Order: sequence, then structure tokens, then C-alpha cells
Amino acid sequence: MQRISELKEIAFERNPFDGFLVFDSANLLYFTGLQGISALLVPRDGENTIFVYGVNYEQAKAGGKGFNVELIQRGENMTKRIAEKAVSCNIKRLALDSSDVKGWSSLARATRSRVRLRLKGELVAGLRRIKDKSELALMRKAAELTNVGMESAIAVLAPGVREYEVAAEIEYAMRRRGSGGTAFDTAVTSGPRSAFSHGGCTDREIQKGDLVVLDFGAVFENYRCDITRTLVAGKPTDKQKHIYELVKRAHQAAFETTKALVKAQAVDGVARRIIEDAGHGELFVHGLGHGVGLEVHEPPILNSTSTDVLAAGNVVTIEPGIYIPGFGGVRIEDTVLVEKDKAEKLTEAQYSL
Amino acid sequence: MQRISELKEIAFERNPFDGFLVFDSANLLYFTGLQGISALLVPRDGENTIFVYGVNYEQAKAGGKGFNVELIQRGENMTKRIAEKAVSCNIKRLALDSSDVKGWSSLARATRSRVRLRLKGELVAGLRRIKDKSELALMRKAAELTNVGMESAIAVLAPGVREYEVAAEIEYAMRRRGSGGTAFDTAVTSGPRSAFSHGGCTDREIQKGDLVVLDFGAVFENYRCDITRTLVAGKPTDKQKHIYELVKRAHQAAFETTKALVKAQAVDGVARRIIEDAGHGELFVHGLGHGVGLEVHEPPILNSTSTDVLAAGNVVTIEPGIYIPGFGGVRIEDTVLVEKDKAEKLTEAQYSL
Repeated sequence: MQRISELKEIAFERNPFDGFLVFDSANLLYFTGLQGISALLVPRDGENTIFVYGVNYEQAKAGGKGFNVELIQRGENMTKRIAEKAVSCNIKRLALDSSDVKGWSSLARATRSRVRLRLKGELVAGLRRIKDKSELALMRKAAELTNVGMESAIAVLAPGVREYEVAAEIEYAMRRRGSGGTAFDTAVTSGPRSAFSHGGCTDREIQKGDLVVLDFGAVFENYRCDITRTLVAGKPTDKQKHIYELVKRAHQAAFETTKALVKAQAVDGVARRIIEDAGHGELFVHGLGHGVGLEVHEPPILNSTSTDVLAAGNVVTIEPGIYIPGFGGVRIEDTVLVEKDKAEKLTEAQYSL
Repeated sequence: MQRISELKEIAFERNPFDGFLVFDSANLLYFTGLQGISALLVPRDGENTIFVYGVNYEQAKAGGKGFNVELIQRGENMTKRIAEKAVSCNIKRLALDSSDVKGWSSLARATRSRVRLRLKGELVAGLRRIKDKSELALMRKAAELTNVGMESAIAVLAPGVREYEVAAEIEYAMRRRGSGGTAFDTAVTSGPRSAFSHGGCTDREIQKGDLVVLDFGAVFENYRCDITRTLVAGKPTDKQKHIYELVKRAHQAAFETTKALVKAQAVDGVARRIIEDAGHGELFVHGLGHGVGLEVHEPPILNSTSTDVLAAGNVVTIEPGIYIPGFGGVRIEDTVLVEKDKAEKLTEAQYSL
């Protein structure tokens, strides 16, 4: 309930709302600890109410201590029920974390404009980006599982092995030790495919001398992790080594810059300048990193246009990369915890081709 | 390009639009074969244009044959670029498959109301729910991999094994044979937890005599599958057998009713009546099933309020269940192909406790 109190403070004291409606599934999980619920209404005055369909009702009742749990019947209009509750709690200015066009207009219709709606997802994002102690414990565990996955990938990677076979070993190693699935679709890109920075995983057989980019993460109690390492299946060429060392240097410099009160854009800039100065700026085709938590991509964002400022308790990725079409790519990524005077790496695995 | 022609036919000939904008990632995959792109604009007059950020640009250029590929710069307003293209193609009435509130209002602003916007996701859903030959081949392959997963689950399931360890074996077996990850989060619910119809997977050790519900699916070339079986870790009790036989009967009766031109609501009703007649109607807390394809839940929907009518080429699940709080649950599910005069099961595994 601490998180709900913080939401009420920020939405009702520091902002002029008297109700907050949560639709986004990661936000719902953050505030209630429950999966499978459809909405949460937090009024300034009145009880915090969870709306849930029958398929998840028993679970919501069992886990939703301290919440009023309302069952929505199949075929029933949920937004109408939410609107009724909002009106009965005397809500005049309702903030929403997110909405599609249909939900928004249906809610506006159901409240007959007696409630003013405003999108204010950033208020929840502001809470979620500062991880508390209990969240950090889960993220450390997710990182441990991720490290195990990387060890197993490095052990199995060899010419003749297919990309999806490497993914199988990674995921099995993490799962067997308690990972709740994968933080996102495991990517194993080899040879020319490694130049695709989001290349997924195919049945391609890894060839001797291929660059292989491994990008994946474990999940622990819904908290995610994200790591990338690049290896060569065999002896690296000078060109591969050159690109690798450049990316490693950019990664290390960005990591050393990362701490509270530094602009996210500046951290991106540190890595980008190193790659630009070597003449490869246009091959670093993505931002430096992103926040990680209940979602694998969440605020803050570290790129050249970000207006975010880092804060102690942020967990972010640092992942510079260079992608040469037709040749291959190199990316090195860690998930790190931002602290007052430095950053700490949560992920750990060898840095060598 | 066949699918785009069909979209143009339905949106521009049978409906009064002169442009269609695709935002939804599964729809984008359906029309372009590409992942990681941000939007597709199909004008009545002019070239079909993909909008993509730098991180996925090389992949879009390599795979996007026949499309005009436009690179969006970081920090650039994509909706503004889409709006310019729409205006230059002389689009006056633009249908969208989906949109969040921000995207919609940003697009309206950028076109300065010279383009009328309408949400028409059902036009694409109407195409996607009829699977063509090439899609069915992929879905059959996804089903084969899913069947392998179920075999491995049955082989490993025993008292003392943790729920997530069963999930590890299922996913490893499917992945090693080429599955592209999991169709959705694998669920292994045991003992009292099996009464949660969407219960995920925990570190609970399976106890002797537990009901265990296994619900998961493989993915092949982005096409998904969905299966559920319920087992007992040991010798089933009479009550477990009774519930199981009832669900099996409901499942079989619904399967035998499934064919083209039958109302989805009627198929749900056949299963529901059997469970209701046995006095357990209120314990069948979800609909009978749903379409499966590029998404694990897509139209048509089979439940008591559905207005869908089945058609040859639909691929749907049939999954009645009974959930007794504190005792446990039973669900039996297959993914089936709807044909003219019957249905065909794509998933296959033993039906016995």
C-alpha cells in the first residue's frame, strides 16, 4: 500500500486530481502485485477498487488484500462500471496512466462528461523508475539468472550450432534455476545477421569466424534483466577485434559516467563520441540504453534526445553497438544500478570476443 | 502483396476509405513479414510505405521488398511524417487498425483535420481470421512442436518436481526442435493453484495426488499454438475423475459441433450446457475458446456473448474448464482448424488424468 500512498501524494497533493485510473498491466502489477486484473481505480476519497473478469476473480480475491475487488461479468461494459464508481467517489478530475482510443471515448461517454479525463502516465513512471529495496533484491536475482544463461551460451557456442539451439540452452539454464520465462524474445544473431541490431533468432548454423550477438534476459518475480555479449565462433579477425575494442571502450566510458544527477543524454554522448571519433557514428543506430524493471523497456531513456536525468535507484542498460551491413555487428550491454556517486553492474560476464 | 490487395479491396472498394494505416505489430507482420517496423501506410493511390526507426532500418530494407521504406530519425515526430505522406497521397478518409490516445490526437493535429480518421481494426481482423495455406502449414508445425512439449511435460511430471522445472522441460523440448520461444507465458498450476485458470508458474513442489494443469504453446515463424492438459501426480480420486470426465465430455461435444457457419456462441453453449447440467456452471469461469494465429488471442471469440460465426480456415481453441476454489481445476484444450463440415485437431496428446 506504500506505492498507492505515493501515487496519491503525487496525483492528489502535487497535482490537481482527485482520482487515478490504472489500465496498464505493468502498472497494475506494481500497485497490486496481481496479474490478470483489468483496472484499478484509486480515488482521493473512497476505497481502492480492482476490476477483474471472472477468469481471474479467485486469484484477485486471494491476492488482493486491502482492495475492494469488483467482478465484471462477461459481456458487461467495464468502463461503465468504472465510471459509476468514479462518480460515486465524487471524482471530478481523473488521471489515467494510459488508454486506447476506444477505452477513452467509452469512459467519456459513461461519465457523461461529469469527470474530466487526463492522460498522466508519467506520474506512475516517475515512481516506477526509482527501485526500492525489495525491487532491487528481485532485480539482483534476475541478473544472477541472466549471468547463468550467458555462461551456458558461451559454453555451447560453436560452428555448426544453430542460433535457436543456443537460445534453447540459454533459456533452459535460466528456467531450471527459477527464471519466470524470458524478459523478451531471446536474440542470437550470427554472421551477417549480427548486423541486425534486433535480429531475433533463426535456424541459421553458426559458421567458423562468425560474430555472434547474444541478447536476452531472465525474469524473477516479474522483474526483468537485459544483457548482451558478442563473441566470435573461432579466432577473431583484426577488423572484428578493432570494432569490438571500440564498443568495449564506449561501454566502459559510459559506465564510468553513470551516476545520479547526470543527464541521460550526456551518458549517451560519452559513448557516442568515442564511436563517432573513430568514424563509425552512423553505425551506432540506436540509443545507449533504457530503464529496466517490470518492463524490459521503461523510463529513463538514455539517448541523444532524452530529457531524463539519472537518479539513485534507476536501473538502466548501457549498450553501445556498431553494425556493419553485410559484415556483422558488435554490442556489449549490462544492466546497471545507478547510485549516488557511481553505477554498479548487476549483470556480469566476460568481456572478450 | 496478396494480403495488401485484399486489404485494399475491403477498405477501398467495400468501405469508403482511400487510405489504411497499420500500427499494430501483429498486423504489420501479417502485411509485411517484418518485425520491428513502426507503421505501414497503404494509400489507394501511391506506394505502400513502411516507417521504421534506425535500429530496424537495415532489416526493413533487406526484407521489405516492394515497399517504400522511410527512415524516421531519433527525436523525429513519426506521425508528422505519416501525415505528410497521407496528404501527399491525397488521402481524405484514413482508416486505422488501432491507436492509443496520444497517437490519434497527434495524427489529427499533424493532418490539421484535412484527413478524416476512423478506427477500423475489424477489417484486418476479418482477413487474419481466415488462415491461408501457407499460414496453416506454419500453424501445423507450431502444433507439432507443442505436442512435443506436452510429451516432455508428461514424462517429467512427478511429486517433488517444482512447477517451474516442468516449464523448463516443456520449453527446452520445443526450443531445441526450432520453436521461436513460447506462444505465451507457460502455465503449470498444481494442487489448489490449479483452480486459478490463469495461474502462471511458481516454485511450488508438486505433491502426490495434485491436479496439475499444463497450458502452453510453441511458436513457428511467428504463428502460435495453444494446448492444455490436466494430469494427476499419482492416482486420481473419484472426485478428480468425475470432474475430469465432465470436462472431457464438454470438450468432445464442443469439438464435434465445430464447423463452418456455426455460431461461436452455440459451440460455447454446447460445452457450457453439459457443465451446467452437472451443476457446475458457475465454475466454468471463462469462455470456451479464441482464435489463434500471429497472436495467441485473436478473433473469432467463442463465448456466451460472442456474435462471431465460424468459417472454414479459422483456427480456434476449444478449452472448457472447471475450477473448484481450494480443491483444484481441470481444463482440456486443443487448437483446432475449422473446416466446411467438421473441425480438425492440430494439437494431439493423451486425454487421461
